Amino acid sequence: MHDFDRDTALASIGDKAWRAELGEGWCVGPVPNGGYLMAIVLKAMGQHLPHPDPFTATIHYLRPAQIGAAEIEVDVVRIGRGHSTARATLSQEGKARLTALATFGDLSAPDGPDFMPARPPDEAPPPEGCLPLKATGLWVPEVARRFDWRYPPECLRWFQGQEQEARLGAWIRFEDGRPNDLLSLAMFCDAFPPPVRTVMEIGWVPTIELTVHFKGKPAPGWVLGWFKTRWCQGGYLEEDGELWDSQGRLVAISRQMARVHARTGHGEL
Amino acid sequence: MHDFDRDTALASIGDKAWRAELGEGWCVGPVPNGGYLMAIVLKAMGQHLPHPDPFTATIHYLRPAQIGAAEIEVDVVRIGRGHSTARATLSQEGKARLTALATFGDLSAPDGPDFMPARPPDEAPPPEGCLPLKATGLWVPEVARRFDWRYPPECLRWFQGQEQEARLGAWIRFEDGRPNDLLSLAMFCDAFPPPVRTVMEIGWVPTIELTVHFKGKPAPGWVLGWFKTRWCQGGYLEEDGELWDSQGRLVAISRQMARVHARTGHGEL
Repeated sequence: MHDFDRDTALASIGDKAWRAELGEGWCVGPVPNGGYLMAIVLKAMGQHLPHPDPFTATIHYLRPAQIGAAEIEVDVVRIGRGHSTARATLSQEGKARLTALATFGDLSAPDGPDFMPARPPDEAPPPEGCLPLKATGLWVPEVARRFDWRYPPECLRWFQGQEQEARLGAWIRFEDGRPNDLLSLAMFCDAFPPPVRTVMEIGWVPTIELTVHFKGKPAPGWVLGWFKTRWCQGGYLEEDGELWDSQGRLVAISRQMARVHARTGHGEL
Repeated sequence: MHDFDRDTALASIGDKAWRAELGEGWCVGPVPNGGYLMAIVLKAMGQHLPHPDPFTATIHYLRPAQIGAAEIEVDVVRIGRGHSTARATLSQEGKARLTALATFGDLSAPDGPDFMPARPPDEAPPPEGCLPLKATGLWVPEVARRFDWRYPPECLRWFQGQEQEARLGAWIRFEDGRPNDLLSLAMFCDAFPPPVRTVMEIGWVPTIELTVHFKGKPAPGWVLGWFKTRWCQGGYLEEDGELWDSQGRLVAISRQMARVHARTGHGEL
């Protein structure tokens, strides 16, 4: 069993209630990563919905989660023909840590027009033209060690923090070879460093809300993640992400609202 | 009293329960507009939260709403120091029509860095260089008549449907002079035609999920809305919007997931 599957495993503890064990391998400092938590919550919701695939999921992060046992309660809002919708709350020690809302459908049953002029970002060379993160000597949080990374050399220069545009990207896959699926896309959407660090010195950037649109099932192999922040106002920013699979197909887009803390006084990432 | 305030008025009907009367002036065909419904729901949530301003709001539209009485139930999830979070469900005739999740804060108390390299879209001339929608003879749904519009001449050409990029925009304000606030931004985020119609013939484009990030309180006067769709896959698309106020400040961004129906067989818009 792969680490991600072990650490997102659910045990039934009642009617639409599940227990998970939040693993220490998926943390930034002491706090489990928001994408990891989204994967767990979507897995719990999926147990109660007839449609197999998350289409759009939003999480509001209420308080930092912590390593250890967590309870997820699922509330089915509506089961329809093409879509179904659920809410869920993840709690620890009696306190809600996050609340989620998601609509599921079936990505295997496309039924409508295609229109897709945009291509993967030009700045990203194929994985063979990129550098393994390990080779860079950059410090990374614990969660980043669960993945194999290939960074475009140009992007590594952006980390010097002198850029005019806040954007970054890299190829990502699980370090232990776990295959890609939609849950791994939820994970990847929040696994990258905040692009705002390419333009300014920052400290902790906690996510307030994360929304992911799942657009397709990823092909095996590398996934290209590309993230940008266009606006940071009064300490709040949006971060927009795209995930492209190894076949050049767009498989997910994400947007989060995050709080930006100054570099001093809140710990460093 | 302005139309928008009359038609978003709430009457208390119990503990955290409100009644609204969905007005016929805010419809597309027989269905009340999604931004109008977001404004009502945010207003109800705001009655129970200590923070004055929505920061990020997501609605999942479960079934079409209809003109007439609606009940909104609010569920406060957490009240914190800087933010508070609530859920709400709007029902009619005992059936949930939408469910919402939002986090509020205080936009008047910025506390952190600014970074804002992006500017309003170059394609948009000032309102004086644009055409009133009434002068164009284009057919519009009922809800569009609640607003005064100024369309860039270039954008009007895009409606011929032969474009390579799906984007459009215009200046908007309430027809009856109602001043701008955050609730009007929620309304404006879903008031524009779907940009996908500039690249293909489409029918009904019902919103599945709409998320709005509120970034600032709008100055008096015109608001510039700019919307694009980059990807439509298997009949689902994302639509990204930006709202800029008359001072050139970004005041909201939106993203929705919508279903695209073919032009025939589902009614026309």
